[in-house]
Amino acid sequence: MSKGTVVLAYSGGLDTSCILVWLKEEGYDVIAYLANIGQEEDFDAAKKKAESLGAKKVFIEDLRAEFVEEFIWPSVQASAIYEDRYLLGTSVARPCIARRQIQIAHQEDAQYVSHGATGKGNDQIRFELTCYALYPEVKIIAPWRIPEFYNRFVGRKDLMEYAEKHGIPVPVTPKAPWSMDANLMHISYESGILENPKSHAPAGLYQMTKSPEDAPNSPDVLEIEFKKGVPIKVTHVKEGKSKDTPLDIFSYLNEMGGRHGVGRIDIVENRFIGMKSRGIYETPGGTILYHAHLDIETFTMDREVRRIKRGLGVKFAEMLYNGFWYSPECEFVRHCIDKSQESVEGKVQLSVFKGQVYILGRESPKSLYNEELVSMDVQGDYDPCDASGFIKINAVRLREHHRLQGEHRSKH
Amino acid sequence: MSKGTVVLAYSGGLDTSCILVWLKEEGYDVIAYLANIGQEEDFDAAKKKAESLGAKKVFIEDLRAEFVEEFIWPSVQASAIYEDRYLLGTSVARPCIARRQIQIAHQEDAQYVSHGATGKGNDQIRFELTCYALYPEVKIIAPWRIPEFYNRFVGRKDLMEYAEKHGIPVPVTPKAPWSMDANLMHISYESGILENPKSHAPAGLYQMTKSPEDAPNSPDVLEIEFKKGVPIKVTHVKEGKSKDTPLDIFSYLNEMGGRHGVGRIDIVENRFIGMKSRGIYETPGGTILYHAHLDIETFTMDREVRRIKRGLGVKFAEMLYNGFWYSPECEFVRHCIDKSQESVEGKVQLSVFKGQVYILGRESPKSLYNEELVSMDVQGDYDPCDASGFIKINAVRLREHHRLQGEHRSKH
Amino acid sequence: MSKGTVVLAYSGGLDTSCILVWLKEEGYDVIAYLANIGQEEDFDAAKKKAESLGAKKVFIEDLRAEFVEEFIWPSVQASAIYEDRYLLGTSVARPCIARRQIQIAHQEDAQYVSHGATGKGNDQIRFELTCYALYPEVKIIAPWRIPEFYNRFVGRKDLMEYAEKHGIPVPVTPKAPWSMDANLMHISYESGILENPKSHAPAGLYQMTKSPEDAPNSPDVLEIEFKKGVPIKVTHVKEGKSKDTPLDIFSYLNEMGGRHGVGRIDIVENRFIGMKSRGIYETPGGTILYHAHLDIETFTMDREVRRIKRGLGVKFAEMLYNGFWYSPECEFVRHCIDKSQESVEGKVQLSVFKGQVYILGRESPKSLYNEELVSMDVQGDYDPCDASGFIKINAVRLREHHRLQGEHRSKH
Amino acid sequence: MSKGTVVLAYSGGLDTSCILVWLKEEGYDVIAYLANIGQEEDFDAAKKKAESLGAKKVFIEDLRAEFVEEFIWPSVQASAIYEDRYLLGTSVARPCIARRQIQIAHQEDAQYVSHGATGKGNDQIRFELTCYALYPEVKIIAPWRIPEFYNRFVGRKDLMEYAEKHGIPVPVTPKAPWSMDANLMHISYESGILENPKSHAPAGLYQMTKSPEDAPNSPDVLEIEFKKGVPIKVTHVKEGKSKDTPLDIFSYLNEMGGRHGVGRIDIVENRFIGMKSRGIYETPGGTILYHAHLDIETFTMDREVRRIKRGLGVKFAEMLYNGFWYSPECEFVRHCIDKSQESVEGKVQLSVFKGQVYILGRESPKSLYNEELVSMDVQGDYDPCDASGFIKINAVRLREHHRLQGEHRSKH
Repeated sequence: MSKGTVVLAYSGGLDTSCILVWLKEEGYDVIAYLANIGQEEDFDAAKKKAESLGAKKVFIEDLRAEFVEEFIWPSVQASAIYEDRYLLGTSVARPCIARRQIQIAHQEDAQYVSHGATGKGNDQIRFELTCYALYPEVKIIAPWRIPEFYNRFVGRKDLMEYAEKHGIPVPVTPKAPWSMDANLMHISYESGILENPKSHAPAGLYQMTKSPEDAPNSPDVLEIEFKKGVPIKVTHVKEGKSKDTPLDIFSYLNEMGGRHGVGRIDIVENRFIGMKSRGIYETPGGTILYHAHLDIETFTMDREVRRIKRGLGVKFAEMLYNGFWYSPECEFVRHCIDKSQESVEGKVQLSVFKGQVYILGRESPKSLYNEELVSMDVQGDYDPCDASGFIKINAVRLREHHRLQGEHRSKH
Repeated sequence: MSKGTVVLAYSGGLDTSCILVWLKEEGYDVIAYLANIGQEEDFDAAKKKAESLGAKKVFIEDLRAEFVEEFIWPSVQASAIYEDRYLLGTSVARPCIARRQIQIAHQEDAQYVSHGATGKGNDQIRFELTCYALYPEVKIIAPWRIPEFYNRFVGRKDLMEYAEKHGIPVPVTPKAPWSMDANLMHISYESGILENPKSHAPAGLYQMTKSPEDAPNSPDVLEIEFKKGVPIKVTHVKEGKSKDTPLDIFSYLNEMGGRHGVGRIDIVENRFIGMKSRGIYETPGGTILYHAHLDIETFTMDREVRRIKRGLGVKFAEMLYNGFWYSPECEFVRHCIDKSQESVEGKVQLSVFKGQVYILGRESPKSLYNEELVSMDVQGDYDPCDASGFIKINAVRLREHHRLQGEHRSKH
Repeated sequence: MSKGTVVLAYSGGLDTSCILVWLKEEGYDVIAYLANIGQEEDFDAAKKKAESLGAKKVFIEDLRAEFVEEFIWPSVQASAIYEDRYLLGTSVARPCIARRQIQIAHQEDAQYVSHGATGKGNDQIRFELTCYALYPEVKIIAPWRIPEFYNRFVGRKDLMEYAEKHGIPVPVTPKAPWSMDANLMHISYESGILENPKSHAPAGLYQMTKSPEDAPNSPDVLEIEFKKGVPIKVTHVKEGKSKDTPLDIFSYLNEMGGRHGVGRIDIVENRFIGMKSRGIYETPGGTILYHAHLDIETFTMDREVRRIKRGLGVKFAEMLYNGFWYSPECEFVRHCIDKSQESVEGKVQLSVFKGQVYILGRESPKSLYNEELVSMDVQGDYDPCDASGFIKINAVRLREHHRLQGEHRSKH
Repeated sequence: MSKGTVVLAYSGGLDTSCILVWLKEEGYDVIAYLANIGQEEDFDAAKKKAESLGAKKVFIEDLRAEFVEEFIWPSVQASAIYEDRYLLGTSVARPCIARRQIQIAHQEDAQYVSHGATGKGNDQIRFELTCYALYPEVKIIAPWRIPEFYNRFVGRKDLMEYAEKHGIPVPVTPKAPWSMDANLMHISYESGILENPKSHAPAGLYQMTKSPEDAPNSPDVLEIEFKKGVPIKVTHVKEGKSKDTPLDIFSYLNEMGGRHGVGRIDIVENRFIGMKSRGIYETPGGTILYHAHLDIETFTMDREVRRIKRGLGVKFAEMLYNGFWYSPECEFVRHCIDKSQESVEGKVQLSVFKGQVYILGRESPKSLYNEELVSMDVQGDYDPCDASGFIKINAVRLREHHRLQGEHRSKH
């Protein structure tokens, strides 16, 4: 008799194929679920493979459009960046994948979900917090945290042997000496030889972006149009070509960014579990959007609103990184950030070239930029004398402080 | 009889030369003070010019070393960046310049100081808050805020006429159709034709950095060594060449960054007085340092310390931008940030290429990175089962929230 | 010929009566505007007085209900408190008063507004920022900042003489040796003998609250019911009496708090212009609401949402204090806070006694409090073993830090 | 053969006595450690009891002075308060107790520590994070999280039976229907009948403070003198009596606060593990100090420094509550806060009466309060005209915002 039904987040690769079979061995009915979030994959082959391994059902779900609209767009609005550098391409995919997994679990009356994330990483947390938040009674099977599993499969060799024994097709190309995670937003590289933080990334690592050295010798100039803080159109200025659905816009920006080697970073970051890890990321389209959005936002948003919004964005990035997309605080913060974007509208022109994004100019019907007011050539509605009072009053506190400190400071 | 003595922040250019003469006309004794903070200038010629215009004394002060050590270094420690993009090259020079101006005023028993900053900008505030903070009784003459002055000199033509009439040498090369401010850290460009935020910057604008298109086709690889959050050595990895005094290090990074077109930005920013303005900046060495410091800091600093330090750095950047370097709060924040940098030590390797800085690797005797702990291949002192409890407890709140909201969310 | 029409914020007292006459002397048509925001005043007499002094029109406006609903309620939602102590009773009244003043100015085609606030205080800023925000072209006449006015009226004696000369009725009772500002929310006392921060407040100062020493010897127990973070009903538990409109609720809480001496504070605060000043405040109803709202909010709001909301509340309090009610940032923050209050609903029982508010108990249909989960007697849906993992993972970072620091710390 | 040596945090009560015996049963050598942090306890009797139960050694440690100086004082400096209400009396004792426990473990070569904290509470975390931070290799035995233990001792009855069976003296007075934790700083009450958040606290609950209704009918007036943000002397103004060591000062404030019923609160709070719990606390001396310190701090500290310090204080309170006293971030924040307190010096007069603390006045040699500057009667070094410019410049942004929004707002 079955112990119950498990919806397994299945990737088509060696690990989750072994997990599929192992779960069956353990007495579960297994539903394999594979999300298409833009990674390179032969989804048909993966489906057949899962079926051949004994999956009760297989779900291949194309989540690309909702991934862009419901997950990447809010991150763009938030200028979400973790520890000043990481654009959160893996983090933002996890709640999207796990949400559908839970929907399938509900629909198929499964009490269990399972995944192949490791026990030291962030992804286990992101998957599971989403699951618990959306399906509090769910039971989670995380084999890489179960001693019987991880003690049995200590290295890749053990998995290979198990695969052979159970008729699981074994990859013919040797595994790269690092691990990698790809989706529409980015590819991340970590582990293996990358664990030494001093070693440089090998030349052939990157798959989404050309090396800046090999990138074209002249820039492409793009115009991105925003409304409510999200892109609604991207145009190649010279070619006149344009895209206007979320998925097309994002894919086109990936193509442009990829061609010019945009969005590569090599960082050490702090995981939620308290370790530092080294990660290498390439986020071509996301990097372009980060810069373009920053520009149109500063152009159209009041300074003080932006200061507050920025603080919320920093918190949002931490929540996202730590796996709290589906939490009351993250829902609250998304609501607030969305509100802040009401007037974030207009067009940004930029060029991409040799790994870099250059903002060239911007325009907006909702800009708070007032060319006359700021002009050095005309006065506008501004009396320079007011600045004297402004400065004097701002100095009240400083002068008091100095007087009371004695006058030692100016004498250094 | 003299109305008193004024120490004038004199640049050698047309504006402050006219102000010098005008102040004399108004009955003041004028001491001309010209700070060398790394701008291109013929300081001898400027001195002679000031003397010929009737300055009672002329001070030419080389502040470059103290500018780097006392002002730029704390900004590097703070990762000071305004509105996510501007590295504050102008802002950080102002307190350095004004501090010496006040020292001269004290030494020369001058009751007045004067400057040529405009009435719509930030610099007037940065100069004057420093002056009031260090010399509370000082009186400030800001001609561009005095109606008799600014109504008399409405355009550049009026200044030229005045100059000719008073024997002030008139520049022979025509003025660029924008204004520019240069120091060791950066050059800023604004006003004139740049006031239209949509117009692209003209090709020949930049003076400190090569165009990325014309930059070398292969990168330079540098190693920067940090101690207490400031660089103590920079080495060109291939050439073996190195620099190890603050001024030499910073100048060399400027040279390297300049050669590769690093550090150009085009932004709209929010001035302290409440206007948005468009500024174009090039900060070659500062940009390299910003990235390198970020990397070594994340590598060596505890996650939560850094989170707090980052918040302080954001505040520091705002204070710096707004002119509050000499304020109790900025002194407090600098102290705290300095404390946070005690273990920020180690070496970062990076390449500069075609406008971009790429971090390649890092090492440190004080790193909190633990290669064994984070490894996917060995367990280290870590039990993956702990993560289950960690996640479950983090989910307590989320599950409660979901239960009490009803289960509508997972059903969308 | 008239210089134009001024809407004067008129209080009925000596100062603004003199200003009214002085404005007429200066050639303006004066419209007197007196807002009823709950202060003790003979409004009819004030009206007659203004008319007799030559006001072109007199507006007496009862703003009490909108003051409570549109200004006090959002402050309650925000737990708005300045520098940890001051409940902002004066600050919150200013935008309410000035908004109507601007509405009258628009309606009466007046280009000017005027007020009697002094040149060192916060109120001038609060009034004027509201005016500029809602009527950017308005011209403001602030006599206490005009040298011809303030040099003419150096002390109260000068005003008295002027009043006598111009037929302005002079107050018969001697002025208290401090100034006072009253509205529905509070009375503030400052200046005069209170300027010495060491001197204790005189016994007879307070007018809204009984001295705790003279207050009843037994408490009154109240139940306040909240919905969306604002009180919708207050009930006297023993007497069964209840109130359910905003103005009635607030007035009743004032009565109860006043009877028991609740809400007196004596503080030194930091004004927006950079001075420290001493203020004494009594805020009976506001103090009760502050405590009750805090209780129901913590009971019903998720911990992390509240942490973010609290940060926004601190910012809101600063904006309110500094006069930025009508600003893009304050509108944004009010929106966010309002959103956070959606589930802040339920009943709080409290007692007021001898100057203090004691929370006794609370209940709510939307509470996140789970009696079974938290119980020490039953397990609930909670596995204590999870806590071990939670703690171990939280310790990862601390253990790393210790190891790398060496073990000197535990040996102190 | 012994499994090793355990240092058990022993309270002398039923639970930890049973744990002591149980640990022996399990094969450990047990060292009993009882910290005197000011709770009511017969320490000699407790010692004899532990010895009679088979403890290898018994340590009774008087930590009261270091508890005040090293733990309470920094909390006073920080104005540490959790969720706006709780003064953290339990939280602050935990690292103090656990530090000595670890020192004993090191000194006695014990590899294990143990405690009797429950599996749903905060204290387990506070104890254990301290232990791991100071002794990373330590092994922790938390019986209330070990199924064999907690399944055996489901209720108090099971403990009583076990006690009888093993010769553990059983308490003769019946246990109160709630649990309680006492130290020098406060007593907390929770669990049992208090778990219903609607029920009022029973009348006889409080042990450290008199009921305000029974408190004296006239106040006591105290003067507290601070230096570097901590009290150095307290004087009873009428009686002339004073105290000047940390422990004496704090004890005397407890006595005074206790006599007048000061410091009682009844709250629902958010535990670190994500539950809401109801707690009742009485913190007499701590409440007085909180108010007095707040007053002298605002009097002597620059506004903007305080704003930053306040943010740090909020973070400090969260760290303290969550058990992170010994963490890199808490050490950093304590350092920063300590720095901020350098000028927090002077005397505060206050009265305690019927449950309330009233600040009466303050004086300081380091105050930034300038009586002349703020005076309404004299001008001081202040030009009211400056305020016009200050306001106008602050309005620039607001006017722009309004103009660009259209003028709909003032027309509501």
